[in-house]
Order: sequence, then structure tokens, then C-alpha cells
Amino acid sequence: MNRASEKAIGVFDSGVGGLTVLEALRQTLPHEDFVYLGDTARVPYGNRTPQTIVRYATSCARQLVERDVKALVIACNTASAHALSALRSTFHIPVFGVIEPVSQMAVDVSQSGIIGVIGTRATIASDCYRRAIANLSPTARVYAQPCPLFVPLVEEGWVDTLPARIIVKTYIGEFLKSMNLMQEGDFCVKNYSEKKKENGIIDTLILGCTHYPVLRDAIDMALNDYGVEVTLCDCGVATARALECALREGEMMHTRRELGTTSYLVTDDPELFTSIGRSFMKQPPVNVEHIDIL
Amino acid sequence: MNRASEKAIGVFDSGVGGLTVLEALRQTLPHEDFVYLGDTARVPYGNRTPQTIVRYATSCARQLVERDVKALVIACNTASAHALSALRSTFHIPVFGVIEPVSQMAVDVSQSGIIGVIGTRATIASDCYRRAIANLSPTARVYAQPCPLFVPLVEEGWVDTLPARIIVKTYIGEFLKSMNLMQEGDFCVKNYSEKKKENGIIDTLILGCTHYPVLRDAIDMALNDYGVEVTLCDCGVATARALECALREGEMMHTRRELGTTSYLVTDDPELFTSIGRSFMKQPPVNVEHIDIL
Repeated sequence: MNRASEKAIGVFDSGVGGLTVLEALRQTLPHEDFVYLGDTARVPYGNRTPQTIVRYATSCARQLVERDVKALVIACNTASAHALSALRSTFHIPVFGVIEPVSQMAVDVSQSGIIGVIGTRATIASDCYRRAIANLSPTARVYAQPCPLFVPLVEEGWVDTLPARIIVKTYIGEFLKSMNLMQEGDFCVKNYSEKKKENGIIDTLILGCTHYPVLRDAIDMALNDYGVEVTLCDCGVATARALECALREGEMMHTRRELGTTSYLVTDDPELFTSIGRSFMKQPPVNVEHIDIL
Repeated sequence: MNRASEKAIGVFDSGVGGLTVLEALRQTLPHEDFVYLGDTARVPYGNRTPQTIVRYATSCARQLVERDVKALVIACNTASAHALSALRSTFHIPVFGVIEPVSQMAVDVSQSGIIGVIGTRATIASDCYRRAIANLSPTARVYAQPCPLFVPLVEEGWVDTLPARIIVKTYIGEFLKSMNLMQEGDFCVKNYSEKKKENGIIDTLILGCTHYPVLRDAIDMALNDYGVEVTLCDCGVATARALECALREGEMMHTRRELGTTSYLVTDDPELFTSIGRSFMKQPPVNVEHIDIL
């Protein structure tokens, strides 16, 4: 056994969203230790310049590397889009973003080659998923829809409410209309089975924001209401699989039988983080420590 | 006539919210020219440190002072709370924040001396309204409620929708419960008339965020549903009256008969600003110019 395998895995995000990635990592790699860093004092990264995002992500990664982690997961779409290559060249441990793994998952599962992406306005405008998917499958067609209210709904604890269900259904409806699958006044997609048989319809949807798995039930329900069957691809699940493969290949997996531990660092109020974090995980964050990052 | 009276009035905010203040200023002072600066690249200010807020506000104010304005309006609750005295000591023209004028208005109209404030989480946590009202009326009682989803609902154009009405009604209901005016399961405030007669009930509500006037109808409707009568105090209207008095006293009012003009500066995408700005004003922003602020 390799001594390095006993080290923890570092995970960071601009805030609480990355907790869905952490949750997936803990399920896939239950024997590993994790250190999660939420840069809550500087959230959101989405509307910063690329240079600022690289600077912020590098400072987060440095905090974790100083804690001697064996691998880094950028559990944030914005930071993955802008800072992955910078972090890979700065730090000499494996670094994973969320965009490549989930794009690969989507390309693998899609039969029709028509892939949808939902995300924040900044993520969709950055076109990062379209580029990642084009690299993996040049013939794939990608449709994208910003859903800017999903993050505040999740962070404010409105997940299982009527307003959340209406808002989710409205955005998904707008998305289907933008693909010409529905028109104003339609309640569902017409001639769905025929389109499905001809492989002429979206069959895969990337949840391109780490907050969105928390709304998974409402998203499923909306797609179901519109009569559409798609496979939802979750950043966290895809990234956990990619990390598992890499650790196995590198003989870096922790070999103990006991469950691993998780510690939490935040750059703003630990209490607010713990309270918002409850929506994101089965076991909410505990013992959250405040740190300053300059 | 004073030459200085022909100069424009500078108005700035971290984003689009200040447009409700601008709208009120234009209605009260129709013959004045205005220059509005929205620091949309650095929005929101609410989660920055006080030092950063002072720095950002000073740089916005400087842009306007360089354009030779005769007075400055800080059309932003966060910047008013933290940067008013710094700007007053840096620039040698009259500077107005929104907190003092609307607090004065609330103290003036309240019969019961029980005043409510709704605002963003950062504004409510800063306690700026409680302090401002205590300065003006030490016996007043202040109740405060954060309504963190109001800003995203307004900015994303969901104002006249069922989700917005439910969310507004939920926050207002929580507020009334926090004042022990309702209990879980109540549909409205009980024994309202008796409480009103005894002057033992809130009668004045400050809209402590520049976005909230856009939701005024939904807020009115929710209060009405709960059987509560309050006077809503709007930052923009209160600040416009304070500015009007000051200009009149200083003989700084524009004396022409024609309507004044408004020009717009933003630090991020002018198109996004124009599109979101439509919810805020009868005449939406036109000819929005991009500027860089370092």
C-alpha cells in the first residue's frame, strides 16, 4: 500500500453548491477522507472576470494542497470552466473539474446525440458545455437553457414548494419550446414516440450547475408532465466515477474498511453554511471551520 | 439663477435596483438632468466587506463627480449604510443616501411607532434601519424581515406571476408571525381592529431594498389578504423629497420648463441592463453606455 493513499481528497466550490458533488463523492468513495472548502465570502464566481476566477480558484486549491490532499476536485462549474488547466499546471496532484466527466457521461448515454444542458446564466453564456461535448463527439447537438432562479430557490430552502415546481416547469417548458418541441399553449410534446423512434429528440440532460441535483425531483416531474423521457446527468456522480477510476489506476484508493471522514472549511459565516447545507446532503455539514483566504 | 443649478444629478447603485430611485427622482424633479451609474460588473455589494463597499462606492461617485454633477444620490441600501459618511467627506457636493430619508418618512407617518422593515439578508443583518430609526425616534419599535428571493424574482422578470405572489405572501406571513400577530395555521391577523385602536400594531412598512417597489402590488395584496393596513415607505420617494428640499434651499433647482434628460452608464453588459431595467421604469433605459471602473 501506498502511503499517499491515506491522504484526504480536497474539494472546493465558491459556496454550498459543491456539496452535491461531495455527496456523490462520499457515496462512490465511502472509505476516503474529504476536506471541503466553500469560498462563501467571495461567492458567486459566475460574474467575475476569468482572471479573477483563476486567482480565486488557485487560492482555494492552495489551501487544500497545504493540507496535504492527494487529489483536488473543483466542485464548481464556473471554476472548472476557467481554472482547470491553471490548477493542473500549478499543482502536482491530480485535479478534476466537473465539466469533462459529466460531458463524457452525457455523450456515453445519449442514443440520439441530442444533449440538453441547463445551468446558470453565466455557465450557459460561457458555452463551456458546448465546447466540451464537441471535443468528445463532434456530431452531437447541444441545446442549452439558463435557469437563473434555481440557485436562489435552492439556497433559500424553497425546494419542495409550489413556487419551485411552477418555476422549474416554466423553465423546462421554455427549453422545450426553444427546441421547437412545443409551441405556446401546448401542454406537452406532440408526436413524442415518433420523434423518439427517429432519434430526433433530446434524450439526455446535463444538470450543469452543482445546485440543480437538489431540484432533481421537480425537474423529473416537469419533464414527465411534458411527456419527455431523458437521462439526467449529474456533475457529482460523473466526477465521482472519474475520480474513482483515476485513484484505482494510480493505486491511490484508501484501503481501510471503515468509513472516511469529512471536514469543512468556509471563508464566511460557518452557521449560514451549515444551515443552507442542510438542503444539499443527507448528513448535513458539521464542525465547519472558518478560514481567511487573501 | 445659479450656473450650478443647470448641472445634472448623479445617481449610482450596484446594479439595476437604483432605477426605482431614479424613477422617483424623475417624477419629483422632472426638469432635472440625471446621470445613472449601475456598477453591474461588481454587483451585488451586499456580501462584500465594509471596506470594499466604501472603495466601490467611492469609485462610482468619482465617475459621476468627474462628469460635473451638482449632487449625488446613493441609490443602494448597502452603499448608503456603509459609504455615506466617506463620500460626504471626500466630495464637496451634497450626497444623499436612501436610509435616512425613508427612515424619517416612516417615523413621520407612523402613529403607533411600530415600524417594519423588509430588505435583503445583508441589509437586515446590518441593522442599519434599526439604528437610523432609533436616532430619529428613540421610542419607536422596529421589526425586520429579510426577503432574500425578492431580488432574483424581480431581476428575472417574475413579478406578475403566481410564484412571486406565493413567495411574497409567505415572507409577509412569516413577518407577521415573528411579531406574534399570527400563528401557524392562521389565515389572517386576529382582533386587528382592537390592536389598531390600542396603537399596538405595525402601521408602517419600509421597503428597505430598491428592488422592492417593483413588487409593491404583490406586497400590498399580501398585507391586504392578512387583513393588515400599513403605509408603505419607498426609499426612492423619500429620497426624492429630501433632495428636492435641499435643492430648493440651496437655490440649486433647474429653472427651465422642459423635461430633463437621463443618461446611463454601466460597468457590465449594457444590453442585459436594458433588458432587466424594463421591469423597473415606465420609460426603460435607453442609450446605455459601458464604462470601466478600476
